[in-house]
Amino acid sequence: MSSTYGESLKLSIFGQSHGPAVGMVLDGIPAGLPVDLEALQTFLNRRAPGQNDWSTPRKEEDRPEFLSGILDGFTCGAPIAAAIYNRNTRSGDYANLKDCPRPGHADYTAQMKYGGFQDAAGGGHFSGRLTAPLCVAGGLCKQWLALNGIAIGGRILSIAGCDETDDPLDPCVPEIPVIGSDFPVVNPRVGEAMRQAISQARKDGDSVGGVIECVITGLPAGLGEPMFGGVESKLAQILYGIPAVKGVSFGDGFAVAGMRGSQCNDPFTIEDGVIRTTSNHCGGILGGITNAMPVIFRIAVKPTPSIARPQSSVSLSRNCPQELTVKGRHDPCIVPRAVPVAEAAAAIAIFDMLLGNTQTNRRK
Amino acid sequence: MSSTYGESLKLSIFGQSHGPAVGMVLDGIPAGLPVDLEALQTFLNRRAPGQNDWSTPRKEEDRPEFLSGILDGFTCGAPIAAAIYNRNTRSGDYANLKDCPRPGHADYTAQMKYGGFQDAAGGGHFSGRLTAPLCVAGGLCKQWLALNGIAIGGRILSIAGCDETDDPLDPCVPEIPVIGSDFPVVNPRVGEAMRQAISQARKDGDSVGGVIECVITGLPAGLGEPMFGGVESKLAQILYGIPAVKGVSFGDGFAVAGMRGSQCNDPFTIEDGVIRTTSNHCGGILGGITNAMPVIFRIAVKPTPSIARPQSSVSLSRNCPQELTVKGRHDPCIVPRAVPVAEAAAAIAIFDMLLGNTQTNRRK
Amino acid sequence: MSSTYGESLKLSIFGQSHGPAVGMVLDGIPAGLPVDLEALQTFLNRRAPGQNDWSTPRKEEDRPEFLSGILDGFTCGAPIAAAIYNRNTRSGDYANLKDCPRPGHADYTAQMKYGGFQDAAGGGHFSGRLTAPLCVAGGLCKQWLALNGIAIGGRILSIAGCDETDDPLDPCVPEIPVIGSDFPVVNPRVGEAMRQAISQARKDGDSVGGVIECVITGLPAGLGEPMFGGVESKLAQILYGIPAVKGVSFGDGFAVAGMRGSQCNDPFTIEDGVIRTTSNHCGGILGGITNAMPVIFRIAVKPTPSIARPQSSVSLSRNCPQELTVKGRHDPCIVPRAVPVAEAAAAIAIFDMLLGNTQTNRRK
Amino acid sequence: MSSTYGESLKLSIFGQSHGPAVGMVLDGIPAGLPVDLEALQTFLNRRAPGQNDWSTPRKEEDRPEFLSGILDGFTCGAPIAAAIYNRNTRSGDYANLKDCPRPGHADYTAQMKYGGFQDAAGGGHFSGRLTAPLCVAGGLCKQWLALNGIAIGGRILSIAGCDETDDPLDPCVPEIPVIGSDFPVVNPRVGEAMRQAISQARKDGDSVGGVIECVITGLPAGLGEPMFGGVESKLAQILYGIPAVKGVSFGDGFAVAGMRGSQCNDPFTIEDGVIRTTSNHCGGILGGITNAMPVIFRIAVKPTPSIARPQSSVSLSRNCPQELTVKGRHDPCIVPRAVPVAEAAAAIAIFDMLLGNTQTNRRK
Repeated sequence: MSSTYGESLKLSIFGQSHGPAVGMVLDGIPAGLPVDLEALQTFLNRRAPGQNDWSTPRKEEDRPEFLSGILDGFTCGAPIAAAIYNRNTRSGDYANLKDCPRPGHADYTAQMKYGGFQDAAGGGHFSGRLTAPLCVAGGLCKQWLALNGIAIGGRILSIAGCDETDDPLDPCVPEIPVIGSDFPVVNPRVGEAMRQAISQARKDGDSVGGVIECVITGLPAGLGEPMFGGVESKLAQILYGIPAVKGVSFGDGFAVAGMRGSQCNDPFTIEDGVIRTTSNHCGGILGGITNAMPVIFRIAVKPTPSIARPQSSVSLSRNCPQELTVKGRHDPCIVPRAVPVAEAAAAIAIFDMLLGNTQTNRRK
Repeated sequence: MSSTYGESLKLSIFGQSHGPAVGMVLDGIPAGLPVDLEALQTFLNRRAPGQNDWSTPRKEEDRPEFLSGILDGFTCGAPIAAAIYNRNTRSGDYANLKDCPRPGHADYTAQMKYGGFQDAAGGGHFSGRLTAPLCVAGGLCKQWLALNGIAIGGRILSIAGCDETDDPLDPCVPEIPVIGSDFPVVNPRVGEAMRQAISQARKDGDSVGGVIECVITGLPAGLGEPMFGGVESKLAQILYGIPAVKGVSFGDGFAVAGMRGSQCNDPFTIEDGVIRTTSNHCGGILGGITNAMPVIFRIAVKPTPSIARPQSSVSLSRNCPQELTVKGRHDPCIVPRAVPVAEAAAAIAIFDMLLGNTQTNRRK
Repeated sequence: MSSTYGESLKLSIFGQSHGPAVGMVLDGIPAGLPVDLEALQTFLNRRAPGQNDWSTPRKEEDRPEFLSGILDGFTCGAPIAAAIYNRNTRSGDYANLKDCPRPGHADYTAQMKYGGFQDAAGGGHFSGRLTAPLCVAGGLCKQWLALNGIAIGGRILSIAGCDETDDPLDPCVPEIPVIGSDFPVVNPRVGEAMRQAISQARKDGDSVGGVIECVITGLPAGLGEPMFGGVESKLAQILYGIPAVKGVSFGDGFAVAGMRGSQCNDPFTIEDGVIRTTSNHCGGILGGITNAMPVIFRIAVKPTPSIARPQSSVSLSRNCPQELTVKGRHDPCIVPRAVPVAEAAAAIAIFDMLLGNTQTNRRK
Repeated sequence: MSSTYGESLKLSIFGQSHGPAVGMVLDGIPAGLPVDLEALQTFLNRRAPGQNDWSTPRKEEDRPEFLSGILDGFTCGAPIAAAIYNRNTRSGDYANLKDCPRPGHADYTAQMKYGGFQDAAGGGHFSGRLTAPLCVAGGLCKQWLALNGIAIGGRILSIAGCDETDDPLDPCVPEIPVIGSDFPVVNPRVGEAMRQAISQARKDGDSVGGVIECVITGLPAGLGEPMFGGVESKLAQILYGIPAVKGVSFGDGFAVAGMRGSQCNDPFTIEDGVIRTTSNHCGGILGGITNAMPVIFRIAVKPTPSIARPQSSVSLSRNCPQELTVKGRHDPCIVPRAVPVAEAAAAIAIFDMLLGNTQTNRRK
């Protein structure tokens, strides 16, 4: 199967870019959890395209209608279903797109998989629009995690080579002002360079990519399962469900490859009677299991494949080369809008693991 | 749950480092697939510790005994179970290790999760020894993939900063001489530098990490499912089940973050009537689905956490700092031995996806 | 989790009786399968309450709106989502019902599980109304099974003790005239007695139960997996998801307990060169796997728990006995309407098994 | 997949009747649960064939060797693996059996599924011997359920028409003397008739079947999930994994079909301040969820298919009828030995549901 995630909870995402609706069903959620729809909408607005320099001017409303599972402001134990109806469906003509796949998109692979039956309009089920229902589910999970003192916050680590890796994110997520902004960076100077790089790419009919870093604080030690059920496995699985992600790493990520053990191992210490580590190269995870330090992960987001420049494609029907110019206006950089999506995905995975966590400590 | 993987096949891995046996059950395998036990043993020997400079001199025999599922050289449809019995179990004294967790290991997180009931000897269920049964399962899957013309080969891309990224791996896996060697590098000069870095680390009582790159050839287009069932999601989930992996990426990985769309998009072309792309920045995967180009992934392996140098730890019983010196001899670098493990993990994931692939092409 | 079913396909059902909508998401369906919406509606109408003696006069429209997954009359590979919107929601007052649980309903167990947060109106997620989206999914699966020559037909075997077990169902399902009628019985005389028993129960302010028998023809031999993946296990799991079912059996069912082996074993024979059995006590399944004879199963449906007569209940708030009279008009017998539901459930399970069937015959 | 069960726990069963070993892996079990191996052996002995009138004189030792997961008498959090090695393997000649399938066995369906690659010796993976590892897993789960005050006990309800349905089982399982005996009946007179029927069948070269009833006491209210995750669904799925089971029912089972609602609904009452029902026709389950009354289920076990009398079979190679006389000595009735198997299966399902139960009561 495809668009289903989770073990203790089951998330099922549906919809195509230009179909009647995109939406989700979230099953396995305990009854009695409060739902703040206003806060959810604020979260969803972070993902929605806006009127700024780095996102598409297309105006979508990401306003979910809940069909089940919520009653009087609380979960009722039944599956939670929500739909975001599309206002202007199937307006364009996508016949050409089915014959001439866009480089960097899933047009060709969908054609190979579904043999021409796929909904090609706007990328169909592979559209970035499907991250809207992902954010509905993740936005709810974020609220419920917050009830347990768990916060998830993301920032833009780099765009087009403008990099603020040397400006570490204070792990006390709830207090950081940048978290939750529509362009969350720690170093304003680097942020300005990122914006200029995006503007330049737009002028060039091109696009740029970047890296997002997320921090999860408040997790208990002992979350995660050995081997394939580790926090890294679970997070990576769902994070790779976000379109355009080509890399996922934890802690120091690929930089560990160049370190020595004496550098990479995080020494233990005791602060105010509490065991912690003096560094966090492991990103809060050892053996797949949390150690109560902040969990830190990064995702690499490729540049938006839809660019204004002509590109080399092929005609599937005539089996010959064909130049393609993608029409419409597209985000020159999806990294800022992908930050809440990464937070949402992580929230879903963490909440699923918390629900399924059956281990208890007994012996001293 | 924890040590179970797969959808169409179900792999269950069991055992602790110093327990009676490590092993696996592999369920859901079709009947009638040939099993070459000799070729399997050759594959397992690539993972086993040897008599060389970069691995532990400890002598283990990774000789699986099959308890079920194979009859007269073929799978019989019943679950395949194999055990690798431990010859010298529980020899050491690990009481101290339970009180004083090794930095960089899962000792502390296991203690937090299992509350003191965990088997701490040799890392218990978190030991690298558990990759032996993973290789049994993966070695079998590799054989069955080969029947379908699918090959998986890995190489050492970097160790301790010695890097051969600029020496691209010819994707014709079966013909590459380095594939399958015990120190698979393309550039002998870089390989020599790697070996020296390992030797130096050993002399320093330290360890080094590295990056492994794997190539999967012969895959059909259209493999993988949208969203959470994509090839990247499935591979990442199992690859993060390998101890010490802190990063997983596909195609150009984190480098895509610095590219422009016009660079990163792989242009289509037609060669001998067959559609392919002129570059492979996407690593053979778009929208989670294969495009028939080689699938390329990389994993970052951290330096072996067991080092000879004294390290800062804590006494859990006395809740105070305590210096720890890890005894025994350990690999100064596990990267070479991790290459077949990465191949095995990938083989399991790919074979699972092939078994579960229900899509058929019909329309032209 | 709860309302999710399947392995190769994933069915997720949502909704509460008086919520905005009931519906389903069906993921994992191959692209290119034709969808006949008119035939689907005809099937759904068999379940919908009608204007007859044995069902509630309440008028519901079971008209699903498809939100995704179907394009130009074919599945497009994306998850199929459908919603049936409720026209008159939350009209009644159900506060009392939450305090005073109806005997034989899930009111009390839902209260115990969800602690008062459950949607009690009309039974909430436990309402028989949730069988409508089950029939949407199952009706689609029935169409796709028919493409493979597989038919599923059910009949009323008994109601209120009026029994036509001695009138065997001709297993050539497609040709049987009774299949698909709104009161499918083989023996008209027994059928008349059933209707009279229902009328009498209605007059008495009471209700009656019955047994449904279904036949599945056209299945290949070799479907099903050993142990927990057998056809019986899969069918039983989903059939017990139908409200009011208290028994599921295959072939001769509980009658096998009184037979001798020499009676119960189905002897093999050869007809026109084809191996079959001369009897079918096993209901087409041995070791959980089909033998190409018709699969036959029965479900026992309890009498509608909502009856007009006063019943003994308790007040949960005051923790004291309280007499309850259930208001509204209810089916005196749900057995006829449960026949298409049983067919739908079976179709889902069988289609799931067909999708996941990876075994192939090779050796002679 | 096939021989894997569970959601929060994962049970994987392996082995063939005459292979090197049968066994199981049980993953997802919390650390720190005590394991009483002696009590487990006592439980396993109830299933083992004995020296009595109703079971085969073949002498097997069902002595599991634990390969992992248990340390110093407690679960350690790692998967629990156990193997029961076969002492005398592949002794017989089963070539004929592969050509001439036994009526009532899975010989033919296995041949159809596995195309001749199946292990036909002794029924291979379909052998009743596979219930031994099921009892290892279930025996452990029974011990852990007992820690929570949950008991599971079974009795023989009928054999060969000798029926003690009118002798209700006192639901206070732990106190019943018959529970745990090797021929558990409530009414000694009926028990004697059963034994005589078995003896007579043996003399006639034939076999008899029966019905087993199990009671589960001590369950909390609110266990189970709606729709496909109900207690009935979960129990039925695993119970149908027991060879020879052709019917599974709950509470009054198929008898509800003949009842009226006013009879079948269980009235609520209050005893000592506790809500309960004055009858238990529903078998402790409403809407798939427990109501804290004893859960009662029954399974119909068909007569042993291996009988001494000649039977009509076919030669698969020659595609012609062939008379078959099954050799060896077989149980004329497996019902007594199936009682602990039913208890084991139920224990696994209930423990899995308890582990996965994430609902909590909050509102008053």
